[in-house]
Amino acid sequence: MNDEFQSPLLERAVTELSRLPGIGRRTALRLALNILRRDLDDATALGNAIIDLRRDIRYCPVCHNISDEGTCRICSDPTRDGATLCVVENIRDVMSIERTGQYRGLYHVLGGVISPMDGITPDQIEIASLSDRVAAGGIKEVILALGATMEGDTTCFYIYRKIAAAAPGIKISQLARGMAVGNDLEYTDEITLGRSLMQRTLFADSFSI
Amino acid sequence: MNDEFQSPLLERAVTELSRLPGIGRRTALRLALNILRRDLDDATALGNAIIDLRRDIRYCPVCHNISDEGTCRICSDPTRDGATLCVVENIRDVMSIERTGQYRGLYHVLGGVISPMDGITPDQIEIASLSDRVAAGGIKEVILALGATMEGDTTCFYIYRKIAAAAPGIKISQLARGMAVGNDLEYTDEITLGRSLMQRTLFADSFSI
Repeated sequence: MNDEFQSPLLERAVTELSRLPGIGRRTALRLALNILRRDLDDATALGNAIIDLRRDIRYCPVCHNISDEGTCRICSDPTRDGATLCVVENIRDVMSIERTGQYRGLYHVLGGVISPMDGITPDQIEIASLSDRVAAGGIKEVILALGATMEGDTTCFYIYRKIAAAAPGIKISQLARGMAVGNDLEYTDEITLGRSLMQRTLFADSFSI
Repeated sequence: MNDEFQSPLLERAVTELSRLPGIGRRTALRLALNILRRDLDDATALGNAIIDLRRDIRYCPVCHNISDEGTCRICSDPTRDGATLCVVENIRDVMSIERTGQYRGLYHVLGGVISPMDGITPDQIEIASLSDRVAAGGIKEVILALGATMEGDTTCFYIYRKIAAAAPGIKISQLARGMAVGNDLEYTDEITLGRSLMQRTLFADSFSI
């Protein structure tokens, strides 16, 4: 492939760009040629934005959402309802729920879901810290807002048992199954997602059927 | 938009990524979150590949193709036919023609086509250097391999007049316009089909190659 590009620099840029999700070598070449046409300042800004993002990003020690420094904006916001906790898989899900404008509580970002297929066990995601957070008191409801997938359901059930044991009186709900089964949160439109949030059901009810 | 991302670092990365062609903010966010999940070394390699590409790339002083240093590989290759020059718009076109495996001559990369709509005049692309190259002698044929567009045709005609004046005896050809190989007549537009008909070639010539 090296000879095709006539340049190891271009070859390297195309290889690196094509490692991004959904970017094939053809698209990567188009991006690289676009970068070549730009000012050096522009290209440097893009390159550094990528490096700085990965190197300098921090995570909120409370909810594990991204945060440029210390506790995140949502956890630090005194107007939000500290008695409600929404458990999500990743930071993109936080953004999705924030965009619905339907939620004023706090979050807990797991950083993944339990997936025996991918070798992801409960101790690799933020479940222990969730238990601790709930056990510390002050939380009245935990909303399980995970994807309607096998892994999401498994994780919901695992968390339900953990929390029910750690803090027996707590209300545990989950997103209404208005979303299409098999879909992840990111592919659900805002209206459907907002509705699923408003019509959340008691977790215990879902397996009594 | 800043608030949506909860982080100026993420916001900045998404903004920079979404300036790439064909990358919207949604895709840019997907790429940024992918970068966040990687090792720091990986993210740094991507960022530096972009910066190095733009900062360190050089262009061949002869044909203006990309070249990591000095004269490019094609111009330096003694096995190539130095009497034939193929004029193309950009370095991607060089790659496209190289991939055909049908061409063993040299190239001249214009770096654009004449486009009054986009404010690109003949002096902004490498036409003067093409004239000089042809006038210096040793070239028997110039192949105009530009896109079959209004701008491509305008540029071809401009170059034709320049070269015909600078080096009267030279052969100037252009890429054949006709049906795409593998296409049926019904999928070929009228203008192309009409042209294919007018510029029909002797059948015997097609298998003598």
